[in-house]
Amino acid sequence: VRNPLLVPDLRELIRAGESPALVDFFQGMHPARVGEILDDLGPGDGDAVVGLLPPRGRAEVMSYIGPEDQARLVEAMAPGDVAELLHFMAHDDRANLVRRLEPEFVEPILRKLAHAEREDIRRLASYEPGTAGAVMTTDYATLAPELTARDALDRLRREAPDRETIDTSYVVGPDHRLIGQVSLKRLILAPPMARVERIMEHEPAFARVDEDQEEVVHKIGRYDLIAIPVVDADDRLVGIVTHDDALDIQRRAQTEDLLAFGGVTTEPGADDAPYWQGSVTSVVRRRIKWLAMLFFAEGLTGSVLRHYQHVETRLPDLALFVPLLIGTGGNAGSQTVGTIIRALSLGEVHPRDAYRVLVREWLTALLLGLLLGALGFVYAMLIRRESAAFAAVIGLTILGICLWANTIGALVPLLARKFGIDPAVVSAPLITTLVDATGLVIYYSIAITLLLHR
Amino acid sequence: VRNPLLVPDLRELIRAGESPALVDFFQGMHPARVGEILDDLGPGDGDAVVGLLPPRGRAEVMSYIGPEDQARLVEAMAPGDVAELLHFMAHDDRANLVRRLEPEFVEPILRKLAHAEREDIRRLASYEPGTAGAVMTTDYATLAPELTARDALDRLRREAPDRETIDTSYVVGPDHRLIGQVSLKRLILAPPMARVERIMEHEPAFARVDEDQEEVVHKIGRYDLIAIPVVDADDRLVGIVTHDDALDIQRRAQTEDLLAFGGVTTEPGADDAPYWQGSVTSVVRRRIKWLAMLFFAEGLTGSVLRHYQHVETRLPDLALFVPLLIGTGGNAGSQTVGTIIRALSLGEVHPRDAYRVLVREWLTALLLGLLLGALGFVYAMLIRRESAAFAAVIGLTILGICLWANTIGALVPLLARKFGIDPAVVSAPLITTLVDATGLVIYYSIAITLLLHR
Repeated sequence: VRNPLLVPDLRELIRAGESPALVDFFQGMHPARVGEILDDLGPGDGDAVVGLLPPRGRAEVMSYIGPEDQARLVEAMAPGDVAELLHFMAHDDRANLVRRLEPEFVEPILRKLAHAEREDIRRLASYEPGTAGAVMTTDYATLAPELTARDALDRLRREAPDRETIDTSYVVGPDHRLIGQVSLKRLILAPPMARVERIMEHEPAFARVDEDQEEVVHKIGRYDLIAIPVVDADDRLVGIVTHDDALDIQRRAQTEDLLAFGGVTTEPGADDAPYWQGSVTSVVRRRIKWLAMLFFAEGLTGSVLRHYQHVETRLPDLALFVPLLIGTGGNAGSQTVGTIIRALSLGEVHPRDAYRVLVREWLTALLLGLLLGALGFVYAMLIRRESAAFAAVIGLTILGICLWANTIGALVPLLARKFGIDPAVVSAPLITTLVDATGLVIYYSIAITLLLHR
Repeated sequence: VRNPLLVPDLRELIRAGESPALVDFFQGMHPARVGEILDDLGPGDGDAVVGLLPPRGRAEVMSYIGPEDQARLVEAMAPGDVAELLHFMAHDDRANLVRRLEPEFVEPILRKLAHAEREDIRRLASYEPGTAGAVMTTDYATLAPELTARDALDRLRREAPDRETIDTSYVVGPDHRLIGQVSLKRLILAPPMARVERIMEHEPAFARVDEDQEEVVHKIGRYDLIAIPVVDADDRLVGIVTHDDALDIQRRAQTEDLLAFGGVTTEPGADDAPYWQGSVTSVVRRRIKWLAMLFFAEGLTGSVLRHYQHVETRLPDLALFVPLLIGTGGNAGSQTVGTIIRALSLGEVHPRDAYRVLVREWLTALLLGLLLGALGFVYAMLIRRESAAFAAVIGLTILGICLWANTIGALVPLLARKFGIDPAVVSAPLITTLVDATGLVIYYSIAITLLLHR
């Protein structure tokens, strides 16, 4: 609860039916803030407040509350009120809302809207999730190239009250083809009789309607854009993606990387489900895939240990160090894979740098291995009271496993990127598992050489 | 190389000294694109191209090339040219550049600039990295509250050519105190004689100059802002942070989370160093801390195994399954911690939900444990040819370890957040290590009960 002092007072006003006081309180408040208070009030009292807001204010608040809350509110409203709400809502948000509602519920409501508005909603709601189309809005200003700056300003002035923003206008030719863009600043500075086509920016950056959202965000970031125009296969302007959506998409995409790195799931779009949404069985279905796959890979450790069981019977203490050694290898590998995935995602490292990366990671592993190996030697001798030769096996194995773990941790994401796989699918569990079985081979080979073959 | 076809042609033009053709080629190109081509050309030829750009174009390109490239270019330029470059550069980017240059080099250059410009650079360069101050720009338009809309527009029209943007103007009172903001759209729509104070937005969202950058990004995202004004301790307007910087800061912060989750480092700011920067020893110094700490925690597994060594001598095959069992626990724990850190960072889960989260993760673990346990039972009986009782131990241990791993994986990040620690410091290696020793206790307890105490 972000407003611990406010909420009880508001609840009291709601109970007492003090509608004018409530309307007054929310008047002129930023819709994001209203949304937070609604969240704090919870469904019951929150919905009562929404009922008191004027149509436009209610529509604005919808953009700042969760999808489930939107659906619940709308399903409790009269069809006419829903139609009015959709009319005032941001174009992209209302399309998303309609997409989530049952067709039997929403169709009669859409029929109450003007033809153009209904078509706009239907079209926006029809784009594939994850594409530019699914996140763009159709609320933008267009200008014809032959207009004068003065006429263009007059036109924008007339349209502005209905537009979210007029900071940038898109210049379209016949068939709504995108031919340029012009900022409001440029129009104001231009001589009044200058034609738009003379002052506009030609060849602005644009996105395709079926382009991946993350690619669109990348363009917005690369060119520092407030909005990027989106065109269809025939170069016709069909929408814009704005900077605030870019911030949102980026945030979702990067927490998606966290899921992949944790080995939860690498399915694109699996991230879209909020934590509480979906049944436990759907969560299990998502997680079991990686776990079962890693289980079988980890099964290899059983074969390795079985293969060396004759060594184990002669040196039973070897088994005591197995979790420590493969755990250290897994940790070193996780560090490397985290570092490399980040460097790949920031564009600091490319697959063609593989050799340089390996040299750097080997040097790092060499130093880390020597330090941790010395630690392991001391630990084995002083705390576990093993012989010096035995402790040397532990120290050398740590060095060997660190070198191997850093090799795997660096190579696997680089190879993934090289073969067009998102390096973020290379999870910490995957690297840990890969290092486990091979780490055991290193361990027993060193032990046999130093302790049995002397 | 993003422009494989372009680069050889450009190199030829540079070799042939075809400056007019080169100037023509880069004329009117977006500075982001010029920056990419410079990157592809490499230092030698790239720097030659920069030398040909007009002063303003050169300054714009600086915002789109890496810090090392900026420093190298500037250090090769005549002091007068550097001063001119700084004059035209974006205010935030030039402050960052100056911050990175040697004082002996930069001081004589700053003295060539106008007093106000010099002070602006010094002040911006002095803010603590990671704060709003360190990322804000001072290139914004201000208006007095008593101006009429018409006068305000006239004023903006005069100033616009020197300003990056005039989409939003900040309304300041005496002492430069922030009292409101007004969009260009609003000024255009207002009656010409309406005073700014009547049409401005009162109490706009703002940030403090010493506020954490990620907090600033959060506000920009929450209110869908193009820019947020930044004020000092006396509420005086000192800068703005723009949407493109927000996108940048968020990207860096989230790849920082990846480093933390990989167990590389949790030092804030350690992420600022690009992959190739810094010596291998500095990398080792960063990574060894976690590795050594986890090494000692992992050392506990040795004590556990030693404690159960008498069981081991009677049932030598138990050791064969140790890596498989603790590996599976670590993987299940990594999944849970990844999921919870993400849900915390998206605000879907709060520490007060701990109980609900645990119930959900337990249910998930129960199902996962039953499925993987069945898998483990079959694997032990059919592939490893153990007895049914032995296989039952494996199956039950997997179930127990999954429940335990999900408990740890959910609780640790929730507790971290509760005690004000960034949950992202809870790394996959930490959870894996915590699960290892305790997982062994579960394993041997079940084995003793089922196989020895019958």
